[in-house]
Amino acid sequence: MPRYTKKDFPVHNVRRFLEPGPIVLVSSAFKDETNIMTMGWHMVMEFTPSLIGCCISSANHSFELVRRSRQCVINLPTADLAVTVVKIGNSSGRDIDKFAEFGLTPKPATHLRAPLIDECYANFECQLADMSWVKKYNIFVFEVVKAHVATAPKTPKTIHYRGDGEFMISGEETRKYRRLFKPGML
Amino acid sequence: MPRYTKKDFPVHNVRRFLEPGPIVLVSSAFKDETNIMTMGWHMVMEFTPSLIGCCISSANHSFELVRRSRQCVINLPTADLAVTVVKIGNSSGRDIDKFAEFGLTPKPATHLRAPLIDECYANFECQLADMSWVKKYNIFVFEVVKAHVATAPKTPKTIHYRGDGEFMISGEETRKYRRLFKPGML
Repeated sequence: MPRYTKKDFPVHNVRRFLEPGPIVLVSSAFKDETNIMTMGWHMVMEFTPSLIGCCISSANHSFELVRRSRQCVINLPTADLAVTVVKIGNSSGRDIDKFAEFGLTPKPATHLRAPLIDECYANFECQLADMSWVKKYNIFVFEVVKAHVATAPKTPKTIHYRGDGEFMISGEETRKYRRLFKPGML
Repeated sequence: MPRYTKKDFPVHNVRRFLEPGPIVLVSSAFKDETNIMTMGWHMVMEFTPSLIGCCISSANHSFELVRRSRQCVINLPTADLAVTVVKIGNSSGRDIDKFAEFGLTPKPATHLRAPLIDECYANFECQLADMSWVKKYNIFVFEVVKAHVATAPKTPKTIHYRGDGEFMISGEETRKYRRLFKPGML
């Protein structure tokens, strides 16, 4: 299991980790229950406030925990957690305690009751900002109110889902096109 | 410039290409004008109908073309188009004709007036499905009504943006975790 030393990260820049489209783990808590789900359908919506749109199907056990607590943590797992990520996505919090079952460490958040998953590369503490599309599309808009990011490595090796059990693992990182940007576009 | 032979692809499965989070090119047309923009903030919202949420800032020249025509094409560029993608993102349709300037081929769509970008690996023809979040968040929901996808290679090498001129290029593709899925989850 990976263990990362983390530090505060500017919430307006979480796009650095989410815009490339990784599978994330959503942790939540309501009353005496916690849960974890995998999520592949999400998007950055705004820098400030730091808004993330998330599709959480009402078929998921986490749906009610998130809806009723109005918060969650978006955790970024790295490729060395791939087997655990797949197992989390193929089990339900109705049947098991996923933290215990998969040997993950719930760590207290700064602003929320929902726990961080300590083994993840980054943890984004989120408060519900807009639920007007929950009924229509199962889409929650969250504001990231606190971001914890690993001090090393600089960029994480992440897991990206294509459906049908197929994954893409993040590859080369490059800044070689940066010279083509206009100053105002950086 | 890459040239791909393409065939029809099931619209309910475009998540295969969009869920991993690549930068895409949005082409649009209104009256006698066409344009192309880069887009990194998008998400899959539903399989059937095939819905994609897209953030198109009102600061973009394409915003009005898309809003008024109520359609666009989401085109998937591969890594060999990276320089062109960056140049498209760093110029405006107010000043130049991007198809001409960057040597891209506008190809007639099946269901739309907006042109496909022939050099891209895939082209998803989209009709506007919901604009109730355009004013609040610049978010358009599109329905993919037709998908054209390259016959080879099986998976494209795509470009993923982190901000600040930094990109991640898609890496290894793997099906080795597929055996961990429950049949109903595939």
